[in-house]
Amino acid sequence: MIKLSYKQKLKKVTTFIFDIDGVITDGVLMMHPSGEFLRNMSTRDGYAMRKASAEGFNVFIISGGESQSMRKRLEYLDVTEIFMAVGDKLSVYKTLKEKYNLKNKEVIFMGDDIPDYDLMNVVGIPTCPKDACQEIKDVADYISHYKGGKGAVRDVIEQTLKVHKKWLTKGQLQAN
Amino acid sequence: MIKLSYKQKLKKVTTFIFDIDGVITDGVLMMHPSGEFLRNMSTRDGYAMRKASAEGFNVFIISGGESQSMRKRLEYLDVTEIFMAVGDKLSVYKTLKEKYNLKNKEVIFMGDDIPDYDLMNVVGIPTCPKDACQEIKDVADYISHYKGGKGAVRDVIEQTLKVHKKWLTKGQLQAN
Amino acid sequence: MIKLSYKQKLKKVTTFIFDIDGVITDGVLMMHPSGEFLRNMSTRDGYAMRKASAEGFNVFIISGGESQSMRKRLEYLDVTEIFMAVGDKLSVYKTLKEKYNLKNKEVIFMGDDIPDYDLMNVVGIPTCPKDACQEIKDVADYISHYKGGKGAVRDVIEQTLKVHKKWLTKGQLQAN
Amino acid sequence: MIKLSYKQKLKKVTTFIFDIDGVITDGVLMMHPSGEFLRNMSTRDGYAMRKASAEGFNVFIISGGESQSMRKRLEYLDVTEIFMAVGDKLSVYKTLKEKYNLKNKEVIFMGDDIPDYDLMNVVGIPTCPKDACQEIKDVADYISHYKGGKGAVRDVIEQTLKVHKKWLTKGQLQAN
Repeated sequence: MIKLSYKQKLKKVTTFIFDIDGVITDGVLMMHPSGEFLRNMSTRDGYAMRKASAEGFNVFIISGGESQSMRKRLEYLDVTEIFMAVGDKLSVYKTLKEKYNLKNKEVIFMGDDIPDYDLMNVVGIPTCPKDACQEIKDVADYISHYKGGKGAVRDVIEQTLKVHKKWLTKGQLQAN
Repeated sequence: MIKLSYKQKLKKVTTFIFDIDGVITDGVLMMHPSGEFLRNMSTRDGYAMRKASAEGFNVFIISGGESQSMRKRLEYLDVTEIFMAVGDKLSVYKTLKEKYNLKNKEVIFMGDDIPDYDLMNVVGIPTCPKDACQEIKDVADYISHYKGGKGAVRDVIEQTLKVHKKWLTKGQLQAN
Repeated sequence: MIKLSYKQKLKKVTTFIFDIDGVITDGVLMMHPSGEFLRNMSTRDGYAMRKASAEGFNVFIISGGESQSMRKRLEYLDVTEIFMAVGDKLSVYKTLKEKYNLKNKEVIFMGDDIPDYDLMNVVGIPTCPKDACQEIKDVADYISHYKGGKGAVRDVIEQTLKVHKKWLTKGQLQAN
Repeated sequence: MIKLSYKQKLKKVTTFIFDIDGVITDGVLMMHPSGEFLRNMSTRDGYAMRKASAEGFNVFIISGGESQSMRKRLEYLDVTEIFMAVGDKLSVYKTLKEKYNLKNKEVIFMGDDIPDYDLMNVVGIPTCPKDACQEIKDVADYISHYKGGKGAVRDVIEQTLKVHKKWLTKGQLQAN
């Protein structure tokens, strides 16, 4: 069997799955007096997530953490499946695979820490931010040179959409 | 036609237009339990914006995002036109051009991401922060060596006011 | 008497004690209008604290600062003893030693500033983040190459659990 | 007249005056939905301010900005004179000089931006953080290698108290 390179694999991608803390955010939890946590997201990552949805890709979230304000933001960004407070990420993934009739090779996942490990080993294209933990880096097909919450999400979306010729070409930009 | 350098072009400037997220802010959105986003600004950038207004320059905002607390801050800094939740930045720009009887060459604009692309290509002096996306950098006359929300805005204001001899000279400083 | 290396000492560890500001957090206090301070924690540090508890280690807090939202977070992470607003850290330590029948050599402590100095000199394994003050660095057995609130806590937990073969081996990861 | 070095000048110091934004804070204003701004301080800077007061030094604030939550924090740190929303810093300084019978050479001031310029030129020892604006750096006796809100305040306090043998010697530390 011929092993495909990371870039070749991107051609098959239909679906992005992201963890929240340390991937969509910078991994910082700010303790708010209300008892909820404040989290930091990047506007440029957000732009890419919405662009991916607009171009027909699935954008899903599977996260161990939980935040209603984050959920609202993700819905605004056209993320269609948002699973929070998840203990067993693999089981959620199997549900999504069935519902959307997905093959593993269509799925790019980005995680940053141990609870993402099992899912990293199942999806077709496991990726991670520059500041992921070592165990996750060891099993990633691609380690972004951007940190979580600071461009890693945009990086993989942009690469994928470029391979599919759905990122912004000059013509598209001017009609933006 | 002789092509003017960036510094020569600054002599014609009467008007600054800034995007908000990633330009006036560092591009971070912090999710607040109230559902609003918290955004980070720099006090030194703010000083420069107010100084520009005091010296008779127009300082305008055209932003895709929306924030009432940001609006209050911008009003305090003497920003006279603040357009938020804008889908079509070019159309807002045309309205402002008419209202203030502006020529493109009088206008310096700073953007950081794809929704700023069209406007970058129309104004006389398109600029961007160091951490703008690649498409924006490609069409900028000047890429600041400061990041968004961390000095990029002050950088272009300071350069312009210096060319106009309206930044702080030693004499002005002592009468400050 | 033979002097044990830092790694050899880790074999005896049963107990982690952490300061809060500058160790579990990045040392930033954000002034909130309510009068409380907001503090920043790392999700990856949090994962390690909970893992240590799950593997049977004591995880304690002795802090000069006070924060109810931080207390809730720490309880969620299975920290069993949380002392806040402490003036005399040494005296709290003596109480804990007695209650849990601890020997100094079983205890790894991480502090970052002068109020941690006395306790650094008593515990078996004094450690500190990369950005601790000089006086603390001078008496630390181990200076993490991570900053406070940005991986220093995880660093010492991970090192210790690896020595005890309780960090995540590949087999453990797949059964995670 | 012999020109004293920065270190020699520190021997005369009785009084610290600090600006807030960009000196005690990192210059970030976070827009809060309530309309107030959130600001970031360092716990290690705070420790030094309180230590300076405890050792008999005056610690004063002269700031253009205004924040009630910051005022509470500063009072907790034993800052005895807190002037906020100040337009003319020089005039406030003259009032303080008279009230405390100060000579210019006793006063160390740290500012970071144009509104601090006049006061920088009057006090005995003008200092600034690493990230101050160029005009302020040009007139500073000492430029800290730490940024505002990230150790610059502690740096000058620590240097001064060491010259006065009032920073923490090993003996003092153990009796801490």
